[in-house]
Amino acid sequence: MTQRPAPIVLLTDFGPDSWYVGAVKGAVLAQAPGVALVDLHHGIAPQDVAAAAFLLCACYRDYPPGSIFLAVVDPGVGGPRRALAGRLGERCVVAPDNGLASEVLRREGPGELRVQDNPALRRGTVSATFHGRDVFAPAAAFLAMGGELATCGPPCGDPVLLPAAGPRRDGETLIGRVMLADSFGNYITDIHADDVAALADAEGAWSALEIVAAGLVLHGLARTYCERESGQPMALIGSLGFLELAVAGGSAQRLLAVEPGDRVYLRMSRESLH
Amino acid sequence: MTQRPAPIVLLTDFGPDSWYVGAVKGAVLAQAPGVALVDLHHGIAPQDVAAAAFLLCACYRDYPPGSIFLAVVDPGVGGPRRALAGRLGERCVVAPDNGLASEVLRREGPGELRVQDNPALRRGTVSATFHGRDVFAPAAAFLAMGGELATCGPPCGDPVLLPAAGPRRDGETLIGRVMLADSFGNYITDIHADDVAALADAEGAWSALEIVAAGLVLHGLARTYCERESGQPMALIGSLGFLELAVAGGSAQRLLAVEPGDRVYLRMSRESLH
Amino acid sequence: MTQRPAPIVLLTDFGPDSWYVGAVKGAVLAQAPGVALVDLHHGIAPQDVAAAAFLLCACYRDYPPGSIFLAVVDPGVGGPRRALAGRLGERCVVAPDNGLASEVLRREGPGELRVQDNPALRRGTVSATFHGRDVFAPAAAFLAMGGELATCGPPCGDPVLLPAAGPRRDGETLIGRVMLADSFGNYITDIHADDVAALADAEGAWSALEIVAAGLVLHGLARTYCERESGQPMALIGSLGFLELAVAGGSAQRLLAVEPGDRVYLRMSRESLH
Repeated sequence: MTQRPAPIVLLTDFGPDSWYVGAVKGAVLAQAPGVALVDLHHGIAPQDVAAAAFLLCACYRDYPPGSIFLAVVDPGVGGPRRALAGRLGERCVVAPDNGLASEVLRREGPGELRVQDNPALRRGTVSATFHGRDVFAPAAAFLAMGGELATCGPPCGDPVLLPAAGPRRDGETLIGRVMLADSFGNYITDIHADDVAALADAEGAWSALEIVAAGLVLHGLARTYCERESGQPMALIGSLGFLELAVAGGSAQRLLAVEPGDRVYLRMSRESLH
Repeated sequence: MTQRPAPIVLLTDFGPDSWYVGAVKGAVLAQAPGVALVDLHHGIAPQDVAAAAFLLCACYRDYPPGSIFLAVVDPGVGGPRRALAGRLGERCVVAPDNGLASEVLRREGPGELRVQDNPALRRGTVSATFHGRDVFAPAAAFLAMGGELATCGPPCGDPVLLPAAGPRRDGETLIGRVMLADSFGNYITDIHADDVAALADAEGAWSALEIVAAGLVLHGLARTYCERESGQPMALIGSLGFLELAVAGGSAQRLLAVEPGDRVYLRMSRESLH
Repeated sequence: MTQRPAPIVLLTDFGPDSWYVGAVKGAVLAQAPGVALVDLHHGIAPQDVAAAAFLLCACYRDYPPGSIFLAVVDPGVGGPRRALAGRLGERCVVAPDNGLASEVLRREGPGELRVQDNPALRRGTVSATFHGRDVFAPAAAFLAMGGELATCGPPCGDPVLLPAAGPRRDGETLIGRVMLADSFGNYITDIHADDVAALADAEGAWSALEIVAAGLVLHGLARTYCERESGQPMALIGSLGFLELAVAGGSAQRLLAVEPGDRVYLRMSRESLH
């Protein structure tokens, strides 16, 4: 088997079944005919750059080393915002310079980051409204075919950074946020398993955790979705590695009064401290 | 053209546009870079193993010989249920051992079925909640790259079997069930064209059939959707080979009072017997 | 890198996440194992051939030369309508002969068009209801593997043509139509940027245009979505090259009283003429 390029992974707010996704893929395949294209998610709430930045980082290592993430949530398209292309850790990102890459930058380190302004890597005519097709797709295709990152443009030392996701500690309490809902209706927070472990360092302590969210107090972290009775709200560490709010056999999104941005409190229950 | 691996075909209840589907594909491509990935369906009602088992079997032969079905509807994830990998007929299935493969097993014969418990074929760290990515994707990728089925684990002689789909006969009446709705809103039953043929052996007799469902009596099987006036409920053999309830130019799902699991009765109309 | 076949691009009304799309892909891959499959759109309103014809043409050149469009919106399936396969401009189309290709035919010129009736290129058993899988997929796969168009069947000199999309001119006013809504909820009309340019030949004149639609009068064409205050209705030339109705930071589909087929009026504002 000949060496094949790593996949290009798409993350956008274009919506599922959008012909704009198809157009991006067409533009990629025109220049990188053999490349595999994988949809990470297209259902980011329109223009929710923070949710996209969180999800991009959470899923980053689920894809093979060498993968190129083509991430387009781009409320500033056609304005002065810059385009970025970078190698961050073992994977690459092509995205608008609006903070979309900031969580990955924080976790993977700065790597090599470029302002993607080389007109030779853009569509002949660049539209004012669709840089996914005209700017980002050609750059991703170029990298997928083995192009040099340096060809994209000059180094970028000052990428736009969003406020960091992740909980803050207030005494013995971690205060995190609901970031987004998954396709099962589970709410994913920005409290990572490592944050939980730092709070409750002994394994057994996890069952003594108390989670306050959605007007509810949940006792203990479950390990799997089937550990609670159907219809019961619960918290657990989901497969992205973050604390989730779920409803056993149901949808937290439908049954709990939660919205992205809501706070989630995590602490050892008082009883467990005595 | 070099020999290419057959596609890996995905069937899940992850929902459309789910990043979990993307993660499964990423895990596959990490080990089987050249493989084609095709989405059969991700909209199985959450945890409806019976509907998935039916659809898997109904679509099985629509894919090329050698195809590998990666089917994940997995309410018992993280619990004691086993993982299966098998060659059934001319195609392969990787799935939890919860009955998902049972309709295919019945139709294609037992073939070669293995308990997939080889840790070398699993992700380094297996999560408690996402075996699609951590257990089933690596096994499917291994098979796609020509890996030996026997490497997956020991033979499985006692797979979990769901009650067989398909109608029972009560005198001169076939009693079937509505299994699921398709993307056009047609209801697909478990009454196969062969069952109909056994009831009404002469070709002409099909127009004398009587279908009772959704509080309606439908007369005759249509051959195509355009044989009835717009808005009329109708029954026909759909492209999966099963009896469907449809509404001409509309959606049975929206217009008829039917739910998956509802009974459908099929018999020769009394008039035709005289 | 070896020469690879150009992608097969799918456009249907099967709905997103439809197993019928999967079956079409399975049928393609059985005969063209290495081919890339790209989803243009599956959310065409059921049986809306005119919307599909418009979208097919609008997106046609977004895909690489050599691409093969497999377009199936097929209310007449199983009836007497013919199947077409053609090379139109630098790309190919396989579709039912119901007008689906008519906009592409008008813009790309007649090219080489064939009635696709060669039984050797069809599934062994052709169903009455699913020619996407049984007729069109095999033909597209055949062409993707380098098959001769002439093998598909005899020349077709009289394809079904729908009334042409595009505005008519009434004095100084262009009267167009809303064709469809995109995944952001923007309404796309059949008034092309070239039509606008013919009306307002000087660049500056674009800001003096007046758009009447949805019971609103909009003043001036914006260049990007971020040029209006959030919540304001606006008009601009979208990335398909056509006049769109949008709501800044929102969804025209949710906020404006518009339906596909509605008229849109475009003229120079009276003030600008004085």
